[in-house]
Amino acid sequence: MLLPSLRKQVLDANLELVRQGLVVHTFGNASGIAREQGLVVIKPSGVRYDEMKPEDLVISDLQGKTVEGKLRPSSDLPTHIVLYQAFPRIGGVAHTHSEYATAWAQARRCLPCLGTTHADYFHGAVPVTEALNSEDIASRYYEENTGHCIVRAFKEVDYEAIPAVLVASHGPFTWGRDAASAAHNAVMLEAVARMAYFTVSINHAAEPIGRDLHDKHYLRKHGTKAYYGQSKNCT
Amino acid sequence: MLLPSLRKQVLDANLELVRQGLVVHTFGNASGIAREQGLVVIKPSGVRYDEMKPEDLVISDLQGKTVEGKLRPSSDLPTHIVLYQAFPRIGGVAHTHSEYATAWAQARRCLPCLGTTHADYFHGAVPVTEALNSEDIASRYYEENTGHCIVRAFKEVDYEAIPAVLVASHGPFTWGRDAASAAHNAVMLEAVARMAYFTVSINHAAEPIGRDLHDKHYLRKHGTKAYYGQSKNCT
Amino acid sequence: MLLPSLRKQVLDANLELVRQGLVVHTFGNASGIAREQGLVVIKPSGVRYDEMKPEDLVISDLQGKTVEGKLRPSSDLPTHIVLYQAFPRIGGVAHTHSEYATAWAQARRCLPCLGTTHADYFHGAVPVTEALNSEDIASRYYEENTGHCIVRAFKEVDYEAIPAVLVASHGPFTWGRDAASAAHNAVMLEAVARMAYFTVSINHAAEPIGRDLHDKHYLRKHGTKAYYGQSKNCT
Amino acid sequence: MLLPSLRKQVLDANLELVRQGLVVHTFGNASGIAREQGLVVIKPSGVRYDEMKPEDLVISDLQGKTVEGKLRPSSDLPTHIVLYQAFPRIGGVAHTHSEYATAWAQARRCLPCLGTTHADYFHGAVPVTEALNSEDIASRYYEENTGHCIVRAFKEVDYEAIPAVLVASHGPFTWGRDAASAAHNAVMLEAVARMAYFTVSINHAAEPIGRDLHDKHYLRKHGTKAYYGQSKNCT
Repeated sequence: MLLPSLRKQVLDANLELVRQGLVVHTFGNASGIAREQGLVVIKPSGVRYDEMKPEDLVISDLQGKTVEGKLRPSSDLPTHIVLYQAFPRIGGVAHTHSEYATAWAQARRCLPCLGTTHADYFHGAVPVTEALNSEDIASRYYEENTGHCIVRAFKEVDYEAIPAVLVASHGPFTWGRDAASAAHNAVMLEAVARMAYFTVSINHAAEPIGRDLHDKHYLRKHGTKAYYGQSKNCT
Repeated sequence: MLLPSLRKQVLDANLELVRQGLVVHTFGNASGIAREQGLVVIKPSGVRYDEMKPEDLVISDLQGKTVEGKLRPSSDLPTHIVLYQAFPRIGGVAHTHSEYATAWAQARRCLPCLGTTHADYFHGAVPVTEALNSEDIASRYYEENTGHCIVRAFKEVDYEAIPAVLVASHGPFTWGRDAASAAHNAVMLEAVARMAYFTVSINHAAEPIGRDLHDKHYLRKHGTKAYYGQSKNCT
Repeated sequence: MLLPSLRKQVLDANLELVRQGLVVHTFGNASGIAREQGLVVIKPSGVRYDEMKPEDLVISDLQGKTVEGKLRPSSDLPTHIVLYQAFPRIGGVAHTHSEYATAWAQARRCLPCLGTTHADYFHGAVPVTEALNSEDIASRYYEENTGHCIVRAFKEVDYEAIPAVLVASHGPFTWGRDAASAAHNAVMLEAVARMAYFTVSINHAAEPIGRDLHDKHYLRKHGTKAYYGQSKNCT
Repeated sequence: MLLPSLRKQVLDANLELVRQGLVVHTFGNASGIAREQGLVVIKPSGVRYDEMKPEDLVISDLQGKTVEGKLRPSSDLPTHIVLYQAFPRIGGVAHTHSEYATAWAQARRCLPCLGTTHADYFHGAVPVTEALNSEDIASRYYEENTGHCIVRAFKEVDYEAIPAVLVASHGPFTWGRDAASAAHNAVMLEAVARMAYFTVSINHAAEPIGRDLHDKHYLRKHGTKAYYGQSKNCT
């Protein structure tokens, strides 16, 4: 069996999404990449979480071809692959329909940085993508196109400083140095999405925190970053 | 004992509604139909869920006459029967007062399709019924009239593509190919009602997703549908 | 030991409030009355719920004098007594700071009847009291005055048809034929307060349900009522 | 090992924050002070709650120098120390990112006293601090500056009558006669923040309760207070 240790890590990340209450029904998946071999390990389709074993995970190459595994991979695999190719320093990707992050995605609003909890994890507003056009939706490459749409939202945003995105009308994707980190970012994204929701309900005119406080908290935690990006959509 | 296997399925569906937190106090019931025999199996009134056994369920014919069972059937039985008669390809019906779906019903608003989670299950906005008129309410056929009112809301809507309705000022009914599917649709309806609530709180002007994205997700999951319906009430 | 069976009932009602999540910290109490003896059994102050035993409950006469019990009674006892005196057909009273009912009380808004869940339990809007005046607040009879304030809100409302009230800026009181029924009404009040909150968030202009539907549901459940009351404050 | 009993108390207070659901990820810490020795016991950084033992806690002097302990203290230690120095009659401090209190802090709104639950614990609105200026944020004394910013918010407010603050764009700090009391105030602050959130959602114009009712409830519980303070920011 290929990549036994990565299989275990990816399984743990998938189970963490469930434990943290981020998975509505079965909407959720996490993957990890072995960069040297160019292989991605991802959750299979249609297996119950409580019965999922490392050997049920699917190993795919970067063309989306299954290299090992009897089950079909998660239908979002092509989106994961596009992210691995565009973001060379990530090792894991997670996707959920967690309620509050999804609500911001459905509202087609960036998630503004309204406090230090957000700033500790995401160095700026979490961008929302543009909507896909009809052609990209109708295409058999819809899932890949979703990936490209995410990448476009990070044209001027540092994907390491803001390891999360809201896909318009769909839900969040997060990433990190490995699958565990991607899952943890999904957990924290939901937490800050939830608090941001309460905040704007209390004060519709709540202002994002200043860059000085934002930098302080983010850099206190993540060390010096050469680049600070902010999506044009998110003022 | 008639229909032992259907009894078990219907019991499981009723318990699933409870497990998923959809049942406020005892407001909730699921049923299943044996089309060939023309018999409906439904939850009895006044039995605690944790003590309910398959033999406690009530079997009724399509005139609402008990064929087997010592207990009274759920008072909503006549509504279930109308749905079985009007919607020939369904095998199960569920009714709950789940909080968010009920809130949309009480607000007398259709549940708009604001994201792909909704689109994966319901191929369009979930309609809200008209209010019953005073005569229909006062009638001894109130529960039957509720069923007819639901059916009217589906005059131009495909009941298979949108297997759910919000009864104005009351709460949701869902259906499916069997009782388990009806219960699962009740779970997903509550999940999307909850996320839609958060979405419109963030952005009062949140737009339903475009038909292309809606079709993509629904058809990706449910195969080609010849008919796409949208209630006139739900723009 | 006096009234052993009533003690047990009242203890059960107090524990039910906790089990149902209605008790914030220790804010909550339920009582029952033995009409013939003119004795009230109520929760003591300062005993942990998980250690409370029937013999810890306090028995008081209708002047508020302890007849049996080593512990101090709940400080809200005088409010309970006023209700027992003004509402001769009730056998139990419950008071909580349950979150949603308290929010309506703090908002100083009647809880409108927005759906059939409400109508099944409360035959009209649940009234909110007037604020107490400064004198009544400063008085050593503050808790009694709270009771009188509740009674004034029911001058033209049938306390049996609407067995609940929102004390302005404070929280809910409910009652019923016995302590269990009072506690159950507290549970249902919180459930409908929660759904009403969601409803008005979705649609600020949500309309109370019509009297015909209201009557249908209430009377379906509670039998013919000669009197239907609506507080002037609650349109 | 120094201060074994205080170590245990502080550990218990930290665990209480977790049990009560106030800790988002690991954001949360409680401390206690031994006034005579001038020593503070605080949660260490980077130890899992379920494995934390009394000996893992860190003991620091009032200059922030570790006196006993192998682990690094919580990074918020300097804020705690400033509070102990400015508020001579407190014995414990707690800090969380509990969701509703944090939302009010992020909204940069004082938490108004909207009901008696609040009045029972906090004798007036809970102040929100001013934002720190850029210099104070950039400084290596950021955490200390946060403490000074809190102290400024209590210039005309009695820290014993209102044992809580909302640090703008950050989250709540609470305090009390010991660590357990500080943690309990954190629990009650979250409860009243949550109910206040619901209240203003129902009625945007909800009014703080009058001073007479406020005094009645607070003084009923806490005895005569010579001083009643209200922040100028909180009308």
